[in-house]
Amino acid sequence: MSHNSFGHLFRVTTWGESHGPAIGCVVDGCPPRIPLTEADIQPWLDRRRPGQSKFTTQRQEPDRVKILSGVFEGMTTGTPISLLIENTDQRSRDYGDIATRYRPGHADLTYDLKYGVRDYRGGGRSSARETACRVAAGAIARKVLGPDVVIRGALTRIGVHAIDPARWDWSIVNENPLFCPDAATLPQWEDYLGEIRKAGSSIGAVIEIRAEGVPAGLGAPIYGKLDSDLASALMSINAVKGVEIGDGFDAATLSGEDNADAMRMDGGVLSFGSNHAGGVLGGISTGQPVVARFAVKPTSSILTPVASVSREGENVDVMTKGRHDPCVGIRAVPVGEAMMACVLADHLLRHRAQNG
Amino acid sequence: MSHNSFGHLFRVTTWGESHGPAIGCVVDGCPPRIPLTEADIQPWLDRRRPGQSKFTTQRQEPDRVKILSGVFEGMTTGTPISLLIENTDQRSRDYGDIATRYRPGHADLTYDLKYGVRDYRGGGRSSARETACRVAAGAIARKVLGPDVVIRGALTRIGVHAIDPARWDWSIVNENPLFCPDAATLPQWEDYLGEIRKAGSSIGAVIEIRAEGVPAGLGAPIYGKLDSDLASALMSINAVKGVEIGDGFDAATLSGEDNADAMRMDGGVLSFGSNHAGGVLGGISTGQPVVARFAVKPTSSILTPVASVSREGENVDVMTKGRHDPCVGIRAVPVGEAMMACVLADHLLRHRAQNG
Amino acid sequence: MSHNSFGHLFRVTTWGESHGPAIGCVVDGCPPRIPLTEADIQPWLDRRRPGQSKFTTQRQEPDRVKILSGVFEGMTTGTPISLLIENTDQRSRDYGDIATRYRPGHADLTYDLKYGVRDYRGGGRSSARETACRVAAGAIARKVLGPDVVIRGALTRIGVHAIDPARWDWSIVNENPLFCPDAATLPQWEDYLGEIRKAGSSIGAVIEIRAEGVPAGLGAPIYGKLDSDLASALMSINAVKGVEIGDGFDAATLSGEDNADAMRMDGGVLSFGSNHAGGVLGGISTGQPVVARFAVKPTSSILTPVASVSREGENVDVMTKGRHDPCVGIRAVPVGEAMMACVLADHLLRHRAQNG
Amino acid sequence: MSHNSFGHLFRVTTWGESHGPAIGCVVDGCPPRIPLTEADIQPWLDRRRPGQSKFTTQRQEPDRVKILSGVFEGMTTGTPISLLIENTDQRSRDYGDIATRYRPGHADLTYDLKYGVRDYRGGGRSSARETACRVAAGAIARKVLGPDVVIRGALTRIGVHAIDPARWDWSIVNENPLFCPDAATLPQWEDYLGEIRKAGSSIGAVIEIRAEGVPAGLGAPIYGKLDSDLASALMSINAVKGVEIGDGFDAATLSGEDNADAMRMDGGVLSFGSNHAGGVLGGISTGQPVVARFAVKPTSSILTPVASVSREGENVDVMTKGRHDPCVGIRAVPVGEAMMACVLADHLLRHRAQNG
Repeated sequence: MSHNSFGHLFRVTTWGESHGPAIGCVVDGCPPRIPLTEADIQPWLDRRRPGQSKFTTQRQEPDRVKILSGVFEGMTTGTPISLLIENTDQRSRDYGDIATRYRPGHADLTYDLKYGVRDYRGGGRSSARETACRVAAGAIARKVLGPDVVIRGALTRIGVHAIDPARWDWSIVNENPLFCPDAATLPQWEDYLGEIRKAGSSIGAVIEIRAEGVPAGLGAPIYGKLDSDLASALMSINAVKGVEIGDGFDAATLSGEDNADAMRMDGGVLSFGSNHAGGVLGGISTGQPVVARFAVKPTSSILTPVASVSREGENVDVMTKGRHDPCVGIRAVPVGEAMMACVLADHLLRHRAQNG
Repeated sequence: MSHNSFGHLFRVTTWGESHGPAIGCVVDGCPPRIPLTEADIQPWLDRRRPGQSKFTTQRQEPDRVKILSGVFEGMTTGTPISLLIENTDQRSRDYGDIATRYRPGHADLTYDLKYGVRDYRGGGRSSARETACRVAAGAIARKVLGPDVVIRGALTRIGVHAIDPARWDWSIVNENPLFCPDAATLPQWEDYLGEIRKAGSSIGAVIEIRAEGVPAGLGAPIYGKLDSDLASALMSINAVKGVEIGDGFDAATLSGEDNADAMRMDGGVLSFGSNHAGGVLGGISTGQPVVARFAVKPTSSILTPVASVSREGENVDVMTKGRHDPCVGIRAVPVGEAMMACVLADHLLRHRAQNG
Repeated sequence: MSHNSFGHLFRVTTWGESHGPAIGCVVDGCPPRIPLTEADIQPWLDRRRPGQSKFTTQRQEPDRVKILSGVFEGMTTGTPISLLIENTDQRSRDYGDIATRYRPGHADLTYDLKYGVRDYRGGGRSSARETACRVAAGAIARKVLGPDVVIRGALTRIGVHAIDPARWDWSIVNENPLFCPDAATLPQWEDYLGEIRKAGSSIGAVIEIRAEGVPAGLGAPIYGKLDSDLASALMSINAVKGVEIGDGFDAATLSGEDNADAMRMDGGVLSFGSNHAGGVLGGISTGQPVVARFAVKPTSSILTPVASVSREGENVDVMTKGRHDPCVGIRAVPVGEAMMACVLADHLLRHRAQNG
Repeated sequence: MSHNSFGHLFRVTTWGESHGPAIGCVVDGCPPRIPLTEADIQPWLDRRRPGQSKFTTQRQEPDRVKILSGVFEGMTTGTPISLLIENTDQRSRDYGDIATRYRPGHADLTYDLKYGVRDYRGGGRSSARETACRVAAGAIARKVLGPDVVIRGALTRIGVHAIDPARWDWSIVNENPLFCPDAATLPQWEDYLGEIRKAGSSIGAVIEIRAEGVPAGLGAPIYGKLDSDLASALMSINAVKGVEIGDGFDAATLSGEDNADAMRMDGGVLSFGSNHAGGVLGGISTGQPVVARFAVKPTSSILTPVASVSREGENVDVMTKGRHDPCVGIRAVPVGEAMMACVLADHLLRHRAQNG
């Protein structure tokens, strides 16, 4: 049991605070003889990196990953892979306010309630910076899964504006800073987010992650279900408040007839008429695309003052100055993909263990 | 690691199939010297039992729990508590169809894809009957949590009909067979479900679970978050397709101002102006009620034939005759409560371990 | 984490007290499609059963195992296998003394110190009766390993009398009640034990377990070493005080030259000149026989009074009347074999997970 | 489950190879608000460091530990503590021989058999250098245990020369390079080891670790026994072939009368007449000193050629040139202490979780 580890056979342990010397992770259980260099990991980190558009925080971090162990002559050895990312943008500043006042909606309060102490610099351990480690681990998980498993994500909603799934176009997702899959919605989002940013406000979002090429049979009854582990993985991302598989909450409104995924043999191959189930039945993958969605709340770091309390028990108002992320959901896309990759890699090994 | 265990320090392992001789569970890690008898567990099982109204399956199971170990002279001893529930309604019938044809939307297909074999009698291991063990374990978890932690659930939606939260009335929830908290919505649901039942159709539902009196500080960053573990626990229940904490997916539509839970000191006690967060910040409980919601899909056991395939790879049509559950979400209420109880009990012990 | 579970992928959870209604275990993670019936398990239990000679306790338990789940039509399904053994010889007696006085060398004292309560009937959870579950699980583990892996054990020492390894003869081990592999030593042991039994005394023993046909590559650095897991498994058996792999403590007396296991290719096959290492190097199996040895202390249930204390803190003398086991090490042979089988089965699955 | 993690609630994950850029570990689950700086860890590392006498390898490593996370303003925060030790003595050399020839008795062969690849530089992951991480983690474990728990170790045997326990003197142990507790034996050992070193040979050793002040009640039945976890911990140290608790293998030669630890109340306090049990009964600590012993084999790196095989399957002879450790058991003393500390800290938290 570990609060800072994830997965069972493909097991990721992360460590580090926002403003300490470095953050990092240890990936244990990776199969041997997989070609791996830092160049396999860095592009995924670059995609998550802040400061690449006006819609994300202007914090500048090169996020250069170093492999410290577990790889020899460009190949995994089966021993733990230690990854390290130095923190370089530890801009000297006064944390006085955050140190003594709890930002509403942040983990400031609860860390103090739990531990009686916290590293308040830049959010400390609760900083979204930790998700860089997830992305790095996810890059390795993709190598374990191999090229046939394709994991992609996109934003499907920012605040009140949802995309039209009928216009979904994967080819534009990585070409715009909002990971928007709907060309018609993109300009709408840009205007909307621009207003929010100028107002010093923030807004929530929904992200969809889709894994194609997942072999049938991954997952396990009863408490090792693939969707159960996905729910845990996605809910563990900062600011996530909801997770869906397949039709998700919409399934609650459907009749059995409308929710049924008809099956047919098609040239000796099993095919489905629809994918309401999101690729998972009874906790086990069907071979259809695995589809998950998660909701990210608006960051509570806003310019409008909010009533709060101080460490000393005084009533105070808190407003957040300085660098600002109007929609933290944007950068959650690569993180969600990485968590999907880690869950699938773990279940691939788990399946192989029991079923040979 | 175990596919059939749940929790870390309050650890539940379940076993058994729908139509084997018995089902059961082992609860390990329970603190010693807690008064416990079968009478503490049975009422919760009775609440989950099918056949109590026309809206649930007519299968009749007394579901009598026996304590086989871990309790001595009415007191837990700190050693594993083994619970056993005999299967009595194993009505002799012909399973021929189910044995060879996959019911769309069921785990029939995926168990076969994964294991190459399955116990097809009544769903085997994937039967909702397994949830009786969760409810039994949940009864013990409630004892661990003590009387100050109150965990209650209700249905908030059946198909297209949602309750009005403003009319929420806990006092009626256990007085109606639909666990409906809204007196005005109840007759509407009864008519609606009656129609669905007559048509041999089925419908989805949403359940809300609320835990009051949860001490602040439960949960842990980063992969031991309270909400992450709740998501896993609730998603592991049969037919669940979505999980939310607090405002859930609605949070994606809100601005930072509207989503903020203002804090104030009120007579030396921390109070909150709202609970958008659902009682969890940064994965750790705030002391506010912990609020979770989950969506249950309509059962795919319907009278309308659905296209499917057989084990031998032939195209077939499948329709479900016999006992029938028009809304499996109803019986999910006690199960959801039990999972909430188990997660909280586990985190209570985990918190105590690290923080004394 | 569970105090009452063992193994990771082949995972055994045991429950039950000596004098409750039953004991049992849940075996999770067993591969599917392995033929398995109660007749595969019962012979191993019969071997462990007490009351079969004058040298073991006269307690009479048929130890009939029932499979309650996880097997369908004679084949494992990949879901948890629940095994149950009813306690039948719960002879009505007065436990008054044991209830209030701590038997020196027993777990009586420590259970009370830890939990503040204990089931004192027949030792409760600390009874050697729990090892029946290990033997049952071990029978399943043997099926997972397949017929090429042969696991056998024997006593190599009773008190001051050790066998001569040069006279080792497997063919006689199961033909005598002392699992003695040395025909010349057997009568010596019988006389020796007869004296000890008559005197109401007890004596320690050493058991050797040998697994042949173990494939190379099982085990893992650093904390998943095969020998480390064997040490844990064997030390967890009641009354065990020492564990050795290969030459064990004798290796401490050797020079590097004398301890070296020379290697040669022999017709394209790797062969070894000796097996000081006991089949494990760097925590990973070499393909040579895996050899482990463990020491069992004499039971403290003796007729001679020993100074002790009562629950109320009074000085008392404790002597054990009634059924008596002069050498508990004898019945540890099948238990040690079972633990070896469980460790190897677990590592077989673990190896397969990472290395395909 | 993780092959490179140890402990459950006080959980240590190590990573790194002998000749990579660094080694390190992550300690998760450490309680918050414990004062901790690098100066608390460094002295223990210095004690383990090679090159401090002619009796250990001349490899020179400063082994300077850096804390990268989990500590804020000199205090643990409850989040993971990442420790890093740079490898500085990566002397450029030709590994050609080791790369292609298996050193008998080393993990060279088995890593290759398991993974099909290995980092052969200086032993790679199987190098004793990994134990520096254990020592660092052990230093933190000592802080968790507090000053009342005193953990000390000493050598009790080198080859054929054992100390006389009657002459045990803790005050000299850290004053001599052989951790010898017996002033009369020390010169004998020095001569003996000098001969072995000159001959390019090596020799085994036995180490005893003793923990005083351990509270009663630590450990748990059945598979979480304190002695079972100690056995696993000590057996996981490089080159260890045997582990004993209390009287260990000698207990096999004793009668119940001679092995009994009589108890008496002494001024309201429980006292014992002896400690054959080594402080553990039924897997749970009694409050007496916890005593463990382990045997270390002679290193197989010797000047005498030994028959072996190459990666290509040719018969070769292997001899080890260069830096040389005549008795690797010496440096195992601080490592054994560290493992004892980690096991006890883990069980302290586990006990607190269940028993408050």
